[in-house]
Amino acid sequence: MYISDLTQNQMWKEENNRLKRTFKFNDFQEAFAFMTRVAFLAETQQHHPNWSNVYNTVEIELTTHDEGNTITEKDRKLAKAIDAILG
Amino acid sequence: MYISDLTQNQMWKEENNRLKRTFKFNDFQEAFAFMTRVAFLAETQQHHPNWSNVYNTVEIELTTHDEGNTITEKDRKLAKAIDAILG
Amino acid sequence: MYISDLTQNQMWKEENNRLKRTFKFNDFQEAFAFMTRVAFLAETQQHHPNWSNVYNTVEIELTTHDEGNTITEKDRKLAKAIDAILG
Amino acid sequence: MYISDLTQNQMWKEENNRLKRTFKFNDFQEAFAFMTRVAFLAETQQHHPNWSNVYNTVEIELTTHDEGNTITEKDRKLAKAIDAILG
Repeated sequence: MYISDLTQNQMWKEENNRLKRTFKFNDFQEAFAFMTRVAFLAETQQHHPNWSNVYNTVEIELTTHDEGNTITEKDRKLAKAIDAILG
Repeated sequence: MYISDLTQNQMWKEENNRLKRTFKFNDFQEAFAFMTRVAFLAETQQHHPNWSNVYNTVEIELTTHDEGNTITEKDRKLAKAIDAILG
Repeated sequence: MYISDLTQNQMWKEENNRLKRTFKFNDFQEAFAFMTRVAFLAETQQHHPNWSNVYNTVEIELTTHDEGNTITEKDRKLAKAIDAILG
Repeated sequence: MYISDLTQNQMWKEENNRLKRTFKFNDFQEAFAFMTRVAFLAETQQHHPNWSNVYNTVEIELTTHDEGNTITEKDRKLAKAIDAILG
């Protein structure tokens, strides 16, 4: 399956003016395919995440640099589109 | 969703000494994320597909060049791994 | 290097109302990274190629479906952006 | 170009038992294509980086978890392969 266990995955939370969510997958290949999906969203919305990956885990942080690093509608829109990938 | 409608997707068939399957997705982003998954499988199994893409459609043909372009166990193994991506 | 031998690569040619070019790379990993670049261009320009890959070779065909499968400015713009990737 | 300016990029350095390097590209599309190349290396070597990305910048940290988070030959091999991508 594309995503291993949705129950393992926490929802988005706000922290230090960032919208954060951690995603866990079965393995690195799944995690990177997910990152490819997010990369397309970032590029078509012209809004890019601060994100990191170790093996099967992807951490995404969204903030709007141009608005003094606060959470804006751009971040909520990207978060929503990322959630839509996971169905 | 990762894959739109499994019922739209035909199964593998043998044709001209090739194992063929066509995959349809919701859009290009889904199709290319799937291709990224297949690319990892191809590279880790060191067995590469003949494949093409137009928008949301990916056509994969598997054959073993080193064995005179016949279908071998390498092709069946890769086909099985590709199917496993789709759950 | 990102691209193995530019002299091996032919330029775009027009054939059957399609703009075509074949790209050869050192190996599959290089070829697929190039495809990832092209995928981003396709998605941001909302104009998608007919393309195929076997190991280190990528064949791209550009045509505008909406204009009765003729070569239009959309195809020339995408071709130019693809060339720019290769510097 | 694939990589904008090699002189902007620092070399690998050792810090807190990690091998670290920061890579800067022209834009996000270049950065993510580079990440795709690194992802293939990680998967074929079965050794995965701790890494992060913001827009055109990729930070890679290599350490061997199985050896108590020290720098081992596995890390140096992956670092060398990553450098080879950039020619």
